[in-house]
Amino acid sequence: MSQSTTHTLAFDATDPIALTQALIRCPSVTPAEAGALALLEIVLAAEGFSVQRPVFSEPGMPDIENLYARIGNEAPVLVIAGHSDVVPPGDVTSWTHEPFAAEIVDGTLYGRGACDMKGGLASMVAAVIRYRRDNPQAPGSIAFLVTGDEEGPAVNGTVKLLEWTKARGERFDHCLLGEPTNPATMSDMLKIGRRGSLTGKLTVHGIQGHVGYPHLAQNPIRGMVRLLAGLDATPLDAGTEHFDPSNLEVTTLDVGNPATNVIPALARAVFNIRFNDLWTPETLAGEIERRLREAAGNTVRYEIVFEPTNAVAFLTQPGPFVTMVADAVEAETGKRPALSTTGGTSDARFIKNYCPVVEYGVVGQTMHQIDERVSLADLRALERITHRLLSAYFAAASAA
Amino acid sequence: MSQSTTHTLAFDATDPIALTQALIRCPSVTPAEAGALALLEIVLAAEGFSVQRPVFSEPGMPDIENLYARIGNEAPVLVIAGHSDVVPPGDVTSWTHEPFAAEIVDGTLYGRGACDMKGGLASMVAAVIRYRRDNPQAPGSIAFLVTGDEEGPAVNGTVKLLEWTKARGERFDHCLLGEPTNPATMSDMLKIGRRGSLTGKLTVHGIQGHVGYPHLAQNPIRGMVRLLAGLDATPLDAGTEHFDPSNLEVTTLDVGNPATNVIPALARAVFNIRFNDLWTPETLAGEIERRLREAAGNTVRYEIVFEPTNAVAFLTQPGPFVTMVADAVEAETGKRPALSTTGGTSDARFIKNYCPVVEYGVVGQTMHQIDERVSLADLRALERITHRLLSAYFAAASAA
Repeated sequence: MSQSTTHTLAFDATDPIALTQALIRCPSVTPAEAGALALLEIVLAAEGFSVQRPVFSEPGMPDIENLYARIGNEAPVLVIAGHSDVVPPGDVTSWTHEPFAAEIVDGTLYGRGACDMKGGLASMVAAVIRYRRDNPQAPGSIAFLVTGDEEGPAVNGTVKLLEWTKARGERFDHCLLGEPTNPATMSDMLKIGRRGSLTGKLTVHGIQGHVGYPHLAQNPIRGMVRLLAGLDATPLDAGTEHFDPSNLEVTTLDVGNPATNVIPALARAVFNIRFNDLWTPETLAGEIERRLREAAGNTVRYEIVFEPTNAVAFLTQPGPFVTMVADAVEAETGKRPALSTTGGTSDARFIKNYCPVVEYGVVGQTMHQIDERVSLADLRALERITHRLLSAYFAAASAA
Repeated sequence: MSQSTTHTLAFDATDPIALTQALIRCPSVTPAEAGALALLEIVLAAEGFSVQRPVFSEPGMPDIENLYARIGNEAPVLVIAGHSDVVPPGDVTSWTHEPFAAEIVDGTLYGRGACDMKGGLASMVAAVIRYRRDNPQAPGSIAFLVTGDEEGPAVNGTVKLLEWTKARGERFDHCLLGEPTNPATMSDMLKIGRRGSLTGKLTVHGIQGHVGYPHLAQNPIRGMVRLLAGLDATPLDAGTEHFDPSNLEVTTLDVGNPATNVIPALARAVFNIRFNDLWTPETLAGEIERRLREAAGNTVRYEIVFEPTNAVAFLTQPGPFVTMVADAVEAETGKRPALSTTGGTSDARFIKNYCPVVEYGVVGQTMHQIDERVSLADLRALERITHRLLSAYFAAASAA
């Protein structure tokens, strides 16, 4: 794919703002590639990266394009991971700036993907290019692992891309994933792990009948209230050193009976648990089943089905790499970031099976929202923080 | 309307079975009259009843035909009440006998309305005709109050028909309502009252959010479970001499949230209470509001709206009239019926404002079902029981 080096860019690839704009202008709503990976290929190939664009397929799903790029042949290999796809813009007329125009107003860049996560990806690419231009003989290797399927089913994305790299003998030492981890300012938060996620579907069976003859019927809503109260009666745990307490939320509960004189036959609920490192999906399902049995006694007839999950809880133990990332953030922002495991799931749950992974990116306040945006100052800060991390990381490699 | 006496019938009007068949063959699904009231008019006018057919209207609703017939000019006036309309047959192909054919197989008459309540009405009409033919000089009066809107909204039916009779100076002493009161055999049950019915709609407000960030959201399902557990924690009462305990059933509970990673904003429930004579709709609504306030504390935001109701609890105090009906049942069946206030609501809740009302009819096991049916023996028994009641009632009037 060395042909791509014949392209010329209209901007300097070390400029995180121009690179973010160029990526946002590719409307890469999952599963569309829309030129975003092609742009990264051109930029990275021009700097000497070996770039590959594997496409993964699954019956009944759209093909997904992915990108793997590497410069250097030696260990250690620092991987920068991310995704080029974005969620749909929603009601375009509600945006004050066209979602794929990447307009800048008063120091803020607007557009779908601005913070999640084209801004983060562009700032890291810009930092890597500046670092490599300044240090062409730096030890070790830098790799990019970019998928077009993080916001979608995540089947033809990072999971397969990691398997693909492994099959080619690639080994990674550490990973920085550029998801927007900061709630409000660039000094807020690194993520060193994620909670797991387990979804259960609960059905309570009753006996349909007339409300005037309750002894001939059995109301499944009464049983459902009892089961849900039982699930919620005591906390699942009190949290651990790096994790919040595990938390169960019932996300829907539906009966759909229009007749006020009829006791219904069935009630259905769905719940989702975000759980910490005290549990596996299996031990947690066991605890939920135990609580349901206890709450049901001999009187409530129910079924519980858990959805398969690959979102287990994981922790990247604080150590030299985590410290190096936190040091870089503190050096640029003046404040040490918290080491957190809060929030939803991310592709870090797949990467952690290959190497330690730390997540850090821009401020995520507007992710997935109308008028998604990022401040230009934050893009520049992330470029400098990444550059500082690269310098420290490969200096340590030289010293070792 | 004396012209109707010129019609001739193909059957003897003192035959409860033939009369039930003729009524079932009029497909009088609410609001259709379908010839059912016209048939009764012909039958009753031929026996000397003065028959009137008032039609009542309400904006936005179909006009409803009703029938009022009376023979005699003196007190006491015994009213026999009923309805000529039926619920729809549902899936006609599921019936083993065409729902409006009134077929007889092995001593059973099949058809929509067989037990609810064309069979009851026909048996009572047949009994009245036999009694009047045998006792043309009997004291007092007999009236029929028949509506075509009992199974529907019940707006242009018994309520307006009662007002209409009152406006014409009609006064009633006692009423027999021919609803199917017997669960299994003809000796089971009279109804001497009905519970009231109150429906409430409960909405719990939360704050929508991502399940990964529960501290930024508030789950309305948690609040709903708490409120419903609070409503159900202690019985509303222990019942009274003639009434079962009041009973609350939640009839539906709906959230409609398809996303397992989203905490929803709203949860809605509907409940219906069947209540006894310890409560009015107002005192009961007050108790429910008190329980909700207590369960909600300062943490659950909710709204409760009660639907207007005219279904108050009422009791016809056991006394000479109730005894007379029970005596007639016992004399024909060999067993004294229970005096009950169970089941749903009926038009008795309107009639009780005009005179004491007792409900008694055939076995109601198949009412509103596919293959609704009545045994021929029960139709004949109801005819004899009604005849016995008429004899006793007017003998007592003579003696007084």
